[in-house]
Amino acid sequence: MQEEKKNCLSRRDALIGAGKLAAGAAIVTAGVNGLITPASASKPAAFPWGYKKIDPQLAGNIAYENWYKGFCCYAVVTGVLVPLQKSMGEPYASLPLMAFKWGHGGAVGWGTLCGSLTGAGIATGFIAGHEGEKILNDVILYYTETDLPIFKPAAPKAQIKNVNTSDSPLCHISVGKWMKKEGVKFFSGPRKERCARLSADVAVKTVMLLNDWVDGKYKASHGSNVRDHGITTQLNCMECHGDDVPEPII
Amino acid sequence: MQEEKKNCLSRRDALIGAGKLAAGAAIVTAGVNGLITPASASKPAAFPWGYKKIDPQLAGNIAYENWYKGFCCYAVVTGVLVPLQKSMGEPYASLPLMAFKWGHGGAVGWGTLCGSLTGAGIATGFIAGHEGEKILNDVILYYTETDLPIFKPAAPKAQIKNVNTSDSPLCHISVGKWMKKEGVKFFSGPRKERCARLSADVAVKTVMLLNDWVDGKYKASHGSNVRDHGITTQLNCMECHGDDVPEPII
Repeated sequence: MQEEKKNCLSRRDALIGAGKLAAGAAIVTAGVNGLITPASASKPAAFPWGYKKIDPQLAGNIAYENWYKGFCCYAVVTGVLVPLQKSMGEPYASLPLMAFKWGHGGAVGWGTLCGSLTGAGIATGFIAGHEGEKILNDVILYYTETDLPIFKPAAPKAQIKNVNTSDSPLCHISVGKWMKKEGVKFFSGPRKERCARLSADVAVKTVMLLNDWVDGKYKASHGSNVRDHGITTQLNCMECHGDDVPEPII
Repeated sequence: MQEEKKNCLSRRDALIGAGKLAAGAAIVTAGVNGLITPASASKPAAFPWGYKKIDPQLAGNIAYENWYKGFCCYAVVTGVLVPLQKSMGEPYASLPLMAFKWGHGGAVGWGTLCGSLTGAGIATGFIAGHEGEKILNDVILYYTETDLPIFKPAAPKAQIKNVNTSDSPLCHISVGKWMKKEGVKFFSGPRKERCARLSADVAVKTVMLLNDWVDGKYKASHGSNVRDHGITTQLNCMECHGDDVPEPII
């Protein structure tokens, strides 16, 4: 799929400019080389919408609190984009973030892509367009190989004992392994707390990578699963296939 | 998770009104009970953004053609939202639809939620907010249990021989089963054509359900996977677990 992406122009340099120059006022809409334009302008803001550095702790706090208002996808979208709504104004300010709640539970409960990662995709999509895909790719890898949650809320709504490495970006696998380890049901306070903290972790990681990116210091770490395996895939092949992993057709 | 949703108000009746009243001009921004407001207004348009009926064939045609420009997620987002950009104007008109390309290949190639379904989630999220989740739930079920693709492009870019039922909303499983049946590689013309046509099918189905919904005729057909299984999940348990499917903890 990589070769098909070549038509998309990289706009990182232009976006870095936009991010650096955007003022910190609550309703900033001044144009920066036409990249960020006010909602009252007759033409839409240029895409991608750009970025201004965010305190990762702030992103985590927002995501944690908002999990309890709209679950995982909404949590990460708001953790990343609410600070931009405040620091950059339009077009972020008019985006109805509750539109993205549907990502919860791996898409309305189907257990597929963890909604926190759907949220990271949506946020990086608006911020960086095609460039954001590398960042999302790295956030997904981080999610799969890290003992989560790490985030410690200032005022926890429940206590949890365990962390786990999911080896998978799928909600079902990630939360299922954790529920088994913790010994709790899906509809339990600790499970909700785990997902709220994990959403905060994804928001924190996304913002940390975006902060590096806007500073020109970001370097993609993960390659292409499709290129390596000849099919779109996770990296935990044996977890479903057992010893009968199909040979990749490349 | 259902009980957590009760705080979200249903706005279907209000949206049906908005959909029925929205004029068909290219740049319609007149307020309808404040639901659809122009981008030039000082406050954001009320959310959800509402809907105006779309010809399913048109949605399919747009999705098919746009798959070749931005893949599956972009295909379905544009199949549903480009007609609304034209018929309802703002706030749809200013939404940069390329922001959603990242959903391709189950999220930048990780093989999770088929990007066509991510696109359906994004579109129904803007259109119907919380109400849209029922529609997405039904679209996902349709995807998993239907022999796809069905869509026949007027001018096919490649020929394909097979259809398949995925039993799963995961890109990896869905496209993997089809590739095996068709005997083709991921980076092949027929595979691309299959995904383009399948994206058209998802756009068509989404629009058909939304058309019913805006007419007040839509009735959700699929229940809650989480309620039934005690965890977020697909319905093809044995495909990964074999005979060792864990007992649901409800």
